[in-house]
Amino acid sequence: MARKIILDCDPGHDDAIALLLAWGSPEIDLVGVTTVMGNQTIDKVTRNALSVAAVAGITGVPFARGAHRPLVRDVEVAETIHGDSGLDGPALPEPQLELDPRHAVDFIIDTVMAHEPGEITLVPTGALTNIALAVRKEPRIASRVREVVLMGGGVHVGNWSATSEFNIVIDPESAHIVFGETWPLTMVGLDATHEALATPWVVEQIAAIDTAPARFVGELLEFFGQTYLREQGFEHPPVHDPCAVAYVIDPTVMDTVRVPLDVELSGTLTLGMTVADFRSPAPDDCTTQVARSLDHPKFWNLVTDALTRIGDPSPS
Amino acid sequence: MARKIILDCDPGHDDAIALLLAWGSPEIDLVGVTTVMGNQTIDKVTRNALSVAAVAGITGVPFARGAHRPLVRDVEVAETIHGDSGLDGPALPEPQLELDPRHAVDFIIDTVMAHEPGEITLVPTGALTNIALAVRKEPRIASRVREVVLMGGGVHVGNWSATSEFNIVIDPESAHIVFGETWPLTMVGLDATHEALATPWVVEQIAAIDTAPARFVGELLEFFGQTYLREQGFEHPPVHDPCAVAYVIDPTVMDTVRVPLDVELSGTLTLGMTVADFRSPAPDDCTTQVARSLDHPKFWNLVTDALTRIGDPSPS
Amino acid sequence: MARKIILDCDPGHDDAIALLLAWGSPEIDLVGVTTVMGNQTIDKVTRNALSVAAVAGITGVPFARGAHRPLVRDVEVAETIHGDSGLDGPALPEPQLELDPRHAVDFIIDTVMAHEPGEITLVPTGALTNIALAVRKEPRIASRVREVVLMGGGVHVGNWSATSEFNIVIDPESAHIVFGETWPLTMVGLDATHEALATPWVVEQIAAIDTAPARFVGELLEFFGQTYLREQGFEHPPVHDPCAVAYVIDPTVMDTVRVPLDVELSGTLTLGMTVADFRSPAPDDCTTQVARSLDHPKFWNLVTDALTRIGDPSPS
Amino acid sequence: MARKIILDCDPGHDDAIALLLAWGSPEIDLVGVTTVMGNQTIDKVTRNALSVAAVAGITGVPFARGAHRPLVRDVEVAETIHGDSGLDGPALPEPQLELDPRHAVDFIIDTVMAHEPGEITLVPTGALTNIALAVRKEPRIASRVREVVLMGGGVHVGNWSATSEFNIVIDPESAHIVFGETWPLTMVGLDATHEALATPWVVEQIAAIDTAPARFVGELLEFFGQTYLREQGFEHPPVHDPCAVAYVIDPTVMDTVRVPLDVELSGTLTLGMTVADFRSPAPDDCTTQVARSLDHPKFWNLVTDALTRIGDPSPS
Repeated sequence: MARKIILDCDPGHDDAIALLLAWGSPEIDLVGVTTVMGNQTIDKVTRNALSVAAVAGITGVPFARGAHRPLVRDVEVAETIHGDSGLDGPALPEPQLELDPRHAVDFIIDTVMAHEPGEITLVPTGALTNIALAVRKEPRIASRVREVVLMGGGVHVGNWSATSEFNIVIDPESAHIVFGETWPLTMVGLDATHEALATPWVVEQIAAIDTAPARFVGELLEFFGQTYLREQGFEHPPVHDPCAVAYVIDPTVMDTVRVPLDVELSGTLTLGMTVADFRSPAPDDCTTQVARSLDHPKFWNLVTDALTRIGDPSPS
Repeated sequence: MARKIILDCDPGHDDAIALLLAWGSPEIDLVGVTTVMGNQTIDKVTRNALSVAAVAGITGVPFARGAHRPLVRDVEVAETIHGDSGLDGPALPEPQLELDPRHAVDFIIDTVMAHEPGEITLVPTGALTNIALAVRKEPRIASRVREVVLMGGGVHVGNWSATSEFNIVIDPESAHIVFGETWPLTMVGLDATHEALATPWVVEQIAAIDTAPARFVGELLEFFGQTYLREQGFEHPPVHDPCAVAYVIDPTVMDTVRVPLDVELSGTLTLGMTVADFRSPAPDDCTTQVARSLDHPKFWNLVTDALTRIGDPSPS
Repeated sequence: MARKIILDCDPGHDDAIALLLAWGSPEIDLVGVTTVMGNQTIDKVTRNALSVAAVAGITGVPFARGAHRPLVRDVEVAETIHGDSGLDGPALPEPQLELDPRHAVDFIIDTVMAHEPGEITLVPTGALTNIALAVRKEPRIASRVREVVLMGGGVHVGNWSATSEFNIVIDPESAHIVFGETWPLTMVGLDATHEALATPWVVEQIAAIDTAPARFVGELLEFFGQTYLREQGFEHPPVHDPCAVAYVIDPTVMDTVRVPLDVELSGTLTLGMTVADFRSPAPDDCTTQVARSLDHPKFWNLVTDALTRIGDPSPS
Repeated sequence: MARKIILDCDPGHDDAIALLLAWGSPEIDLVGVTTVMGNQTIDKVTRNALSVAAVAGITGVPFARGAHRPLVRDVEVAETIHGDSGLDGPALPEPQLELDPRHAVDFIIDTVMAHEPGEITLVPTGALTNIALAVRKEPRIASRVREVVLMGGGVHVGNWSATSEFNIVIDPESAHIVFGETWPLTMVGLDATHEALATPWVVEQIAAIDTAPARFVGELLEFFGQTYLREQGFEHPPVHDPCAVAYVIDPTVMDTVRVPLDVELSGTLTLGMTVADFRSPAPDDCTTQVARSLDHPKFWNLVTDALTRIGDPSPS
């Protein structure tokens, strides 16, 4: 049976691909998309999400706008990576969908509470602000959510500082809240996503699909590759966010290990670091796990299969 | 014209008196009461709020239940001061009112957005969790609220640590959020409320009213006096929360000064301290002020006048 | 019997006056002067100390150079207050004395260990780096020093941030070390020293002495007054450092209270704050006290008496 | 030419083996041994150092006692690992050597200043308190020391917390000072030393030497193996401290990489973490490097060769 997920994202190049992967995979039942500021402002990422929906012909899925800023800290966007629009590179079509009238926080709460316990999986690929606000406002979702599978953090590697990853460090308090809840949580962080490189082979596979959405992805990867080379010295860009979706589709796409996880809130050098304690075997009540590595061809095959299934949507 | 307020409280002995003061004062139009964990758990303080409503014959006012825990930190209650029920001392009548179905956060947002800008004053007398969640979920309330008049903090004095006051230190991140917003904010902290002592003269004045609510207050003060003597060495207990309501009724009840205020989030000795910067005159865009002292008889006259007006409500 | 003191200073305008006060007071036996970076670099303040010795005709007192930087943090000097030389204003004579060959840390240790327990009082009027290094290198001095009387900190007022004073905040770890030792410690902080204003009456009294050292002090005060007006808005400059010396001469010059004191090392808004816990009476084993206010005429009379005694030293 | 080193240690089982390795290796000229509290109190580790000297017949090397406590924090010893004496297991002979009269800090300063620049290598295998105090008291040693090769820290692994190693976390401020100086610094941390396991092969090799010092080491390893199994779950104990000495003897015993290093001073989860920034190639002025792995047989051959050379010292 397809897994029901809410994708909570800040498109963002890799968020866009995560959305396409979710939409084009029969193993996923996309029950909603929520947005959160991060890669760009909430206005921009929300519009981007709707533009991606237009590209892919997504219909029948509610999109709800979420947090405009981190819980405690000031807004910091990733314009150096994602450009002024948050999705620079391809032409962005006009949104066709109307936003759900609810705030993302209420959409998440309502959806989780309307389903049976264990039905809904949350897949955040941005800052964890919406998820944190939702579980603080309605604590019962903690025991009803099946699992949180998030892109963020990194145990042995950082990108926004020596020890921290962007999604976590821009709102560490929200991350601390989400990591500290009782739901099962899988952290798909840089340890795995730095292996999800868009190599020339990947780019060729996607180009060969030769549909409008695939060309859109190709243009995203081209821009993303340029900024990652310039800003972080990557020869091929790491495409983080679809990794979290891929894990829901097929957990064998990565190697995971159970380990207690928490988020540092007060370090000078380590603010926003996701701290794993590997000193002992994880205790029985440990509900967190972290991805350590990725099966590169299996991962990208999931993406190209999804793009192939999406095909060339007729204009709505 | 009466000032429309939402009282956001965690009864709590002094919260109960704050509620009675608001209800019994014609200068106040009590448009809602919201609850937040603090002096006791959210279940207990919510029940206490409804019990106080029954004591005072409060009707026609929505009561909404709010946050069950602080934003980021763990729950810490003030059982040593307020007892196991959160309102130990008097017998607590059965609640008569039904709770509003909305979460306090949504009640606050809906109410502020349904009124004209500048109409609603928020009067928090507990942790600032609900207010923080509300302004993060709906940032437009920051410019629509007339003013936040809160009981909490202390510039030169603490009670839960050498430098911090209970309402602030149990959820410093929420306090930081609320103090950092653009709305006008008056902090009625320990600098003023440690002058709001329930002296024997006060106790006599209240006893002389000789109504059920006044006797209820007398019993609250008796218990409160015992715990404050035992825990903090006060000869007469400081009755903090009604001071914030009193300021809304009549700002001349205290001396205030405009000064930039913020909340310390990371100190070892100073976590939750409300920091005022008195080094220079407050800049023109400073929207915060702090109460420095209290007119004791004027304050208690407001309380006794309110109790007198409430009289002896007939059982509903 | 005169009190044997080591003056540990960073001249600095008010340090210079502290040195003159110590030298000119029969109640003080100045057994040594040590220097520490602070108001300016260690090279500059050490030269300044020797220049002041030349102005006052100080002989027979060892001067030892100390720490070139704070224990853990980077160097930060107070050039805006004390100027490029650290003692801008008057012409500074060539030093006549040779420096003691020992590091200040060893000079302090040697001197304390060479005297009987309870003989030596340390009077630091700058950062506490030398004192901290000394007590970490030779812990036995903690029980041999009679008392530490320091200028620094402030319980209810700051000058370098809203909550911190310069001497403490530039090396908070050293201050934490010194405040945490077992010796009796009197903190003469801004609460008292902001009352040690060099008013026109003070300036006239000093001018009337009409000696070279008094004119030197007059020129110091003129420069100091200008920078304090410009930088911190003081109409008349607070002359901090001699207050600590004055307390050793005559404790009745200020009002003190026993209270536990510690230094905040990790706050964002409160780094370097000297935290006093006034919630309960000081416990019996409390060895710290803080000055709360100053007798202005009594204080300045000590200074003018000392200057009068110093007279007009003949050139050496 | 033999490398002149000062071994700064807190014996401690692995410190004892480090001392034997240094003494028995012709590539090392042991110009002094200094002690620092850590594995046990300063009294105990200093006595232990002298006992090990007696075991090995060390003569002609000054031993100087150092810091009795960390710079800023309270004393914390590793009794669970090293036992009540700090060197539990073998019988400890009476010390034969007299301590140098100088404090370790002065011994280090004097020795470095008495040699040519680039002659002395500091090899700390305990907390960095002595080294920090020395470089703060005499900053010129920073440019005269050839290199600091220390055992401590860990980039991707901790032992005293999830992210920190004992030597660093018990005095993080001293570590921050030492890591921040301008001297070349090689951190031999847990990333390498967790590969220096005393496997049965190692134990056999050492037993085969069949001298009193070798039997002493065998008894150390037996006790150390028991505590490491019990406390940290190691099948064979990691013998940390001689790795730093081994690196001085033969840098090819481990793989190192240049990378900026610093020590976290304020994290809740990360206090004392040694933070390496691997995001970019190390800048040209980077003077720090970290060991990443160890050649196990080459390392242990150095140890057994040294023990063989030491032979069976005749009683002095």
